[in-house]
Amino acid sequence: MPFDKVDELAINTIRTLAVDATAKANSGHPGAPMGMAPVAHVLFNKFMKFNPKNPNWLNRDRFVLSNGHGCMLQYALLHLFGYELSMDDLKNFRQIDSITPGHPEAHDTPGIEVTTGPLGQGFANAVGLAMGQAHTAAVFNKPGYDLVNNYTYCFFGDGCAMEGIASEAASTAGHLQLGNLICIYDDNHISIDGDTKCAFTEDVMKRFEAYGWHTQHVKDGDHDLEGIEAAIAKAKEVKDKPSVIKLTTTIGFGSKLQGTGGVHGNPLKPDDIKHVKSLFGFDPEKTFVVPQEVYDLYHKHAAEGAAAEQEWNKLFEKYGQEYSDLHKDLARRLTRDLPEGWQNKLPTYKPSDPAIASRKLSESVLEAIHDVIPELVSGSADLTGSNNTRWKNAIDFQPPNLGIGEYSGRYVRYGVREHAMAAIMNGLCAYGTIIPAGGTFLNFVSYAAGAVRLSSLSHQRVIYVATHDSIGLGEDGPTHQPIETLAHFRALPNMMVWRPADGNETSAAYYMALTSKTTPSILALTRQNLPQLEGSTIEKAIKGGYVALEDKEADVTLVSTGSEVAICLEAVKTLKEQGLKARVVSLPCVEVFDAQPKEYRLEVIPDGIPSMSVEVMSTLGWEKYSHEQFGLNRFGASGPYKEVYAKFEFTPEGIAKRAKATVDFYKDVKPLRSPINRAFTQLI
Amino acid sequence: MPFDKVDELAINTIRTLAVDATAKANSGHPGAPMGMAPVAHVLFNKFMKFNPKNPNWLNRDRFVLSNGHGCMLQYALLHLFGYELSMDDLKNFRQIDSITPGHPEAHDTPGIEVTTGPLGQGFANAVGLAMGQAHTAAVFNKPGYDLVNNYTYCFFGDGCAMEGIASEAASTAGHLQLGNLICIYDDNHISIDGDTKCAFTEDVMKRFEAYGWHTQHVKDGDHDLEGIEAAIAKAKEVKDKPSVIKLTTTIGFGSKLQGTGGVHGNPLKPDDIKHVKSLFGFDPEKTFVVPQEVYDLYHKHAAEGAAAEQEWNKLFEKYGQEYSDLHKDLARRLTRDLPEGWQNKLPTYKPSDPAIASRKLSESVLEAIHDVIPELVSGSADLTGSNNTRWKNAIDFQPPNLGIGEYSGRYVRYGVREHAMAAIMNGLCAYGTIIPAGGTFLNFVSYAAGAVRLSSLSHQRVIYVATHDSIGLGEDGPTHQPIETLAHFRALPNMMVWRPADGNETSAAYYMALTSKTTPSILALTRQNLPQLEGSTIEKAIKGGYVALEDKEADVTLVSTGSEVAICLEAVKTLKEQGLKARVVSLPCVEVFDAQPKEYRLEVIPDGIPSMSVEVMSTLGWEKYSHEQFGLNRFGASGPYKEVYAKFEFTPEGIAKRAKATVDFYKDVKPLRSPINRAFTQLI
Repeated sequence: MPFDKVDELAINTIRTLAVDATAKANSGHPGAPMGMAPVAHVLFNKFMKFNPKNPNWLNRDRFVLSNGHGCMLQYALLHLFGYELSMDDLKNFRQIDSITPGHPEAHDTPGIEVTTGPLGQGFANAVGLAMGQAHTAAVFNKPGYDLVNNYTYCFFGDGCAMEGIASEAASTAGHLQLGNLICIYDDNHISIDGDTKCAFTEDVMKRFEAYGWHTQHVKDGDHDLEGIEAAIAKAKEVKDKPSVIKLTTTIGFGSKLQGTGGVHGNPLKPDDIKHVKSLFGFDPEKTFVVPQEVYDLYHKHAAEGAAAEQEWNKLFEKYGQEYSDLHKDLARRLTRDLPEGWQNKLPTYKPSDPAIASRKLSESVLEAIHDVIPELVSGSADLTGSNNTRWKNAIDFQPPNLGIGEYSGRYVRYGVREHAMAAIMNGLCAYGTIIPAGGTFLNFVSYAAGAVRLSSLSHQRVIYVATHDSIGLGEDGPTHQPIETLAHFRALPNMMVWRPADGNETSAAYYMALTSKTTPSILALTRQNLPQLEGSTIEKAIKGGYVALEDKEADVTLVSTGSEVAICLEAVKTLKEQGLKARVVSLPCVEVFDAQPKEYRLEVIPDGIPSMSVEVMSTLGWEKYSHEQFGLNRFGASGPYKEVYAKFEFTPEGIAKRAKATVDFYKDVKPLRSPINRAFTQLI
Repeated sequence: MPFDKVDELAINTIRTLAVDATAKANSGHPGAPMGMAPVAHVLFNKFMKFNPKNPNWLNRDRFVLSNGHGCMLQYALLHLFGYELSMDDLKNFRQIDSITPGHPEAHDTPGIEVTTGPLGQGFANAVGLAMGQAHTAAVFNKPGYDLVNNYTYCFFGDGCAMEGIASEAASTAGHLQLGNLICIYDDNHISIDGDTKCAFTEDVMKRFEAYGWHTQHVKDGDHDLEGIEAAIAKAKEVKDKPSVIKLTTTIGFGSKLQGTGGVHGNPLKPDDIKHVKSLFGFDPEKTFVVPQEVYDLYHKHAAEGAAAEQEWNKLFEKYGQEYSDLHKDLARRLTRDLPEGWQNKLPTYKPSDPAIASRKLSESVLEAIHDVIPELVSGSADLTGSNNTRWKNAIDFQPPNLGIGEYSGRYVRYGVREHAMAAIMNGLCAYGTIIPAGGTFLNFVSYAAGAVRLSSLSHQRVIYVATHDSIGLGEDGPTHQPIETLAHFRALPNMMVWRPADGNETSAAYYMALTSKTTPSILALTRQNLPQLEGSTIEKAIKGGYVALEDKEADVTLVSTGSEVAICLEAVKTLKEQGLKARVVSLPCVEVFDAQPKEYRLEVIPDGIPSMSVEVMSTLGWEKYSHEQFGLNRFGASGPYKEVYAKFEFTPEGIAKRAKATVDFYKDVKPLRSPINRAFTQLI
């Protein structure tokens, strides 16, 4: 069907809504929506399959606006197609508590798949969504049951194209031959600093070819709707490569300032708004106008999507008759519930069991549970043998023609691409059928900080397996030894940072990571061996903190995590020789501990005696759980790990010395309150 | 001169030293040194210009080992050429307090230009070093005085090639047409997960061509010394593009496990060591053997380098006669001292001056000082207009043929490449003649965390201009509003995090950032306007913290930073109405405050009254300076900033309410100690 006046009207409606919303908010980015309205119209109305009444339908096409600052484009589309996003929501663009914030947020707004805005993230999320589709299709599709065959579409601009995370993700997608991924590069030559000539003169399409992508160029993205349609249609035919379509557009199309940076991040001036509306045949005096033909056109497409979902539901029901186990599995995955009884597989340990590094303990968990949690997809950023993230009989997630794996494989070789790994995991999780876990050294989770933050903000159940968690990694030295990393991620809202002290605590960390449906986790794990503690159980550890060694007459509480808990237990003996009694608290996850009732927390860190934290990295934040802090507020050292520990006095003697100083220092303070007691509670 | 037996002997000496050192340490990476010994030999002995007796000679060629895990290659070379790195140092590889740590650290080891190991960093540092050369040459070279003409050479492997930071830096280098940069890509097909086929199948050379690089391929990097020599010579001739030479090598060449992942990160087994030594004609029973011919060969080259420096020194002296101002400027820059009296240019403010956003105050500082500090090179990751990092008459650092700047320009358009910007700044600083400052939003400094960490670890005077520092940025919303960021970087050793409250504090932040020769700084700056405080001066603020409002009879101390200080001052009035007296402390930089004498710190945060911190982000770490904390331990909100502040109660009333609760809570505690008083001091 050729394009006609209604198509043009629809495109200009999107444009004027973006103009009006940014003007009303006196804030926001009209340029990208005005420039990308044509391709958005063609894509959404001619290609995309979705049901606005059920934004969670599994087989919907996914859309990601990686240039998230252009979100009025997406909000306008969601409104026009009939998602739960009203005209009032558009009018509340960028206002407090609206569902139309300044950048798209997945958990707040129906129809938003992933949280974007920080540049490059959405592009990498899209790669994850496409991988999610490929994996889910490979696992569940059967002859006659093409249950999962959706595409992932992504818009990105020059900013995303410059970001390293997008380069990493693009290289990954090319390697993985993701034919289900179609990206539109908004080649408008403008970024915030003006003409991209000032910093970005590479040949972007040639670069994507080097990654193994199929590339096309539509030269007039402002008008050539047929060209856009043909290019997307062609991209859909390319099954063995991801596709990128370079679309040359005019930023702020229609504005007096079109084609300039002036229209990127600022609302149009009143006279320019009138100019735009007149140009597009809209009444210059009216705002937020949607012609009925546009609603009609889009609602028709939405109805087709709803019908498609109905068909799909029937197909899925029929599938259940033929493949009842798979049907049950997929239906369960969509609830985000885990299979009943899975937790019985978690390894438990007795104190007599041998000392084992927590990275190995983590491997044992994965080995034990991967069969009962089929949605668990593990991987590593090229540190498989060090992160111990791969169970023995794992099959790699790979394009079948490479002969080294299958799309149904559950182990992802992310390459040395930590940032993309994290963002891809966000996309995998957002797909809805997968729980991703990915490994790197704790120190290099920092490379991925931009995406880790979005795991938290967008409520993704993503598991970061972060091994080599301290100076205990030894010889690799300060470049690899985390000091600030745990403080960083403990300060990040909605993130569980676990630093287990032994086998039971490692199992507890996985228990919480897997059952917390809307919270990501970082598991900080050792390279060096850890003894199994006397007092640890999964049940205790899932409270985030517990008393590992009680002494009702204690002079001091030692509060510790991970590899230092066992040293604290040794320090208790040293202190005893000096006539002091100590109790030991293991606090593997402060965020989970914080969520316990105050009464419990005060049992763990009681009033009346001083407490000292012991963790072999930055002390920042430990004042919340202790009166005094023993840590490492400097960079570490390269050497055998026991010598590094000794150098910094993380020994029973070093701990005892400081614990004694702590006891002495607080002798005269009355009442000596536990740091758990606070004058007021924080707003959350 | 053709290559002969001594060349081969030198190459095999490097290899066996790497084998012996990793074996003795029982730790480390022999594979890369064994594979790259041939190219290292050719590069160092045939091309590189350096004087081992003065590793700081300005016009030396720079060498960066971006695959820093292969550092035994570099340590062996440094030893053999006669740097202050003894055979005992090689034997102490990866031992505590040695100068041969597990990855190269710039400030500890003579001849190491930059700290590498975290993959991709060195490559981006090399781009910075090359930019430093281009800029310094453009500023100082004169006809007949080709003072600065060194090359920057960089080795990198598949790991670096996969990292996004390297992609960003490569795109930047191509844009900048850095003909002085020559990179050798160690194409050995092996990363930690094994064959790179599992994750990395892109066409790397085609990608570099897309960036605008000159590319070559030497197919037999194990033997073809002539080919290597010819390729480097060719690359030196290419003046208008950076060069990359793909060198196909065999990792662990000579080992029984050569060409496999087994030789990447583990010492060779004893029988393999014997095998290697026999193969290379070395006595299999002896370790750490250097034939005298090898020392002789390398010392001869070193002597030529020393002579070249002598020549250069004469040239520089002569230059001083003709261009005395430039001579004086360059000589001064090399001392890292600033021009005398520069600080008199720093803007100061009176309380009656208008309210100004600290990003604008920062711009005023740059405007005021750029003339007197010619080594200051500013820039932004595509947020120039938002970061306010560009002084009015700044000239862009650009290749002249683009017509939009010059290499002598002092403003860098980094593009949307935060991570590469940070690592490039590390390289610019390491070059020795430049103080780099670079802007992005505070939230996106996290994208650069890997490189920011290395600014600290490698003691680089780098300034991060981090604007939009809180929920005060308003409408852009939670994706852009930092919560965890300051806690993250406060936990990073050797980093000054500044959050100035007004104009005088902003000037103080720059004063400290510029005069701290071995410490990087992050300046967290507001988007919103801030009033000029009554009690602020540069002199007070450079102590990191001071009393902004004193009251000797105060019931409570409010400790605050940045935009919240003025709100605290308002809250004092609210409290007064409620019969409570409060004093206010401004603490713009806790790291600098920590360095003050305890007596001073106790004056600022005294014993006897409770204190409450007020900062509109994570409270993590504020317990160190206050009894109670008012902050934001959740994500922010999209909306006009005053409404966002009100939503979270960061208002005089909200502060007063919590201050009152604090006073009540601590009434019964005796003695009430300042949090400055600690039971013991931290090891630093």
